[in-house]
Amino acid sequence: MSTATYTVVGMTCGHCVSSVREEVGAIKGVTGVDVDLETGRVTVTSDGPVDTALVRDAVDEAGYELKP
Amino acid sequence: MSTATYTVVGMTCGHCVSSVREEVGAIKGVTGVDVDLETGRVTVTSDGPVDTALVRDAVDEAGYELKP
Repeated sequence: MSTATYTVVGMTCGHCVSSVREEVGAIKGVTGVDVDLETGRVTVTSDGPVDTALVRDAVDEAGYELKP
Repeated sequence: MSTATYTVVGMTCGHCVSSVREEVGAIKGVTGVDVDLETGRVTVTSDGPVDTALVRDAVDEAGYELKP
């Protein structure tokens, strides 16, 4: 099992959190997504390591930005 | 046809706008809802006058507050 933490910029409310959770949660192998609105911290749990590019794409898809 | 304008407090993003539009748009007689995120202004177009209490309830239901 892998856990990785990212910072997402631009989330303002619970709807934003849901969007990010949904998109990131749809990545293959991802088993859990924890999003903290206040800090923008997104913790992703997965079966194995997940390519950051996939997380970045999912966050983009949700309408937000992964902090470099 | 009636048009009334309200101010809604607490909307932060496009998802919030959609929620308000959906709930207010579900009020009987309402034919159009225009929401401006920047100002919080919500313009409601309807067949006839709409009870403000119904608009307030709909905004509450969406998770926001109608400015008194």
